[in-house]
Amino acid sequence: MTRIPESTVRRLSLYLRALEAFEEQGTGTVSSEELASRGGTTSAQVRKDLSFFGSFGKRGLGYAVPELASRLSDILGLRRPYRVVFVGAGKMASALVNYRGFGQRGFNIQAVYDRDPRKIGTQWNGLVVRDVSHMARELKADPIDIAVVVTPAEAAQGVVDLLASAGVKAILNFAPVQLTVPPDVAIKSVNLTLELETLSYALRNR
Amino acid sequence: MTRIPESTVRRLSLYLRALEAFEEQGTGTVSSEELASRGGTTSAQVRKDLSFFGSFGKRGLGYAVPELASRLSDILGLRRPYRVVFVGAGKMASALVNYRGFGQRGFNIQAVYDRDPRKIGTQWNGLVVRDVSHMARELKADPIDIAVVVTPAEAAQGVVDLLASAGVKAILNFAPVQLTVPPDVAIKSVNLTLELETLSYALRNR
Repeated sequence: MTRIPESTVRRLSLYLRALEAFEEQGTGTVSSEELASRGGTTSAQVRKDLSFFGSFGKRGLGYAVPELASRLSDILGLRRPYRVVFVGAGKMASALVNYRGFGQRGFNIQAVYDRDPRKIGTQWNGLVVRDVSHMARELKADPIDIAVVVTPAEAAQGVVDLLASAGVKAILNFAPVQLTVPPDVAIKSVNLTLELETLSYALRNR
Repeated sequence: MTRIPESTVRRLSLYLRALEAFEEQGTGTVSSEELASRGGTTSAQVRKDLSFFGSFGKRGLGYAVPELASRLSDILGLRRPYRVVFVGAGKMASALVNYRGFGQRGFNIQAVYDRDPRKIGTQWNGLVVRDVSHMARELKADPIDIAVVVTPAEAAQGVVDLLASAGVKAILNFAPVQLTVPPDVAIKSVNLTLELETLSYALRNR
């Protein structure tokens, strides 16, 4: 398969969100212009993004909403559930596990790990906190799909090394640090403080 | 001033986080190599990033930790508090307002707005939910610095237009949609579902 640019994958996710909203409203077809406005792009880019995956839509008629939504779900790998673990049972992790976006899309939280002996064994958002020193062994025995890293910055690289050694191939990182992973592991980082500081920088330097 | 690349600003934020950790450990100086590893970059890039803002560090001695941390706080605009409002009193917003990263850096949440009559006037995380139809007028009278948009996708552009009309110059958007703002407004988007779907895409297409 052609290597698809990440920017295209990110827009597919936005198009899918838009299509689901149209579907809820009972809209049967949408134009590439309508999808473009939701994806922050042009109708030519919408057509180009979709052309990577085959032929969609009819000239002058637009795209059939349920069919395109279904096809994008398929392309984005959303036809199956994913087993997710959290590493780091802190405040941010608590906020995230209660975010319904996870469950809605089939990202099912299986376990949470921490290294704090005061937390290990206790109840945490409906899960029992497990000992991170057993994580690699447990995940080798009972594999998961996606790990969410919500540790302090200084612990994150060690955790990611453990996850990679246990065969985890996808990581979502919230620790405020850049992490190195083997080439066959996909990693995405979200850093709220960094986003806020980009804004404070912008306000200071206008 | 030279226009600073956004990638540099983002790394400054990572360097600052690293410097604060070194400071807590009582480390007096750090090398550009040590900062590079925390910023996911090279020591040459660290020196280049810092050179935008003047001369730091001494050849062979490295950077003085408290001095560089203080200077980066200054550059990133973190010497003053920021007044923040939330728009959208939903689950994700609840998760975010309880994230201590906001308060720690002086991002102080002043108010929350919603359009749901069942929510307006009720208590929500220590704030009273205000009516979004009064937002533009209230923010003109009592300006804020940063608005966090946590509405459904279809409402977000209208909210952002209201914020811009009320003079808000910095927006952090969590709605899963690309938004258009006037050129003098800074906007950053965070989309957790999109990050997860980039990972499910990667897992499906390995």
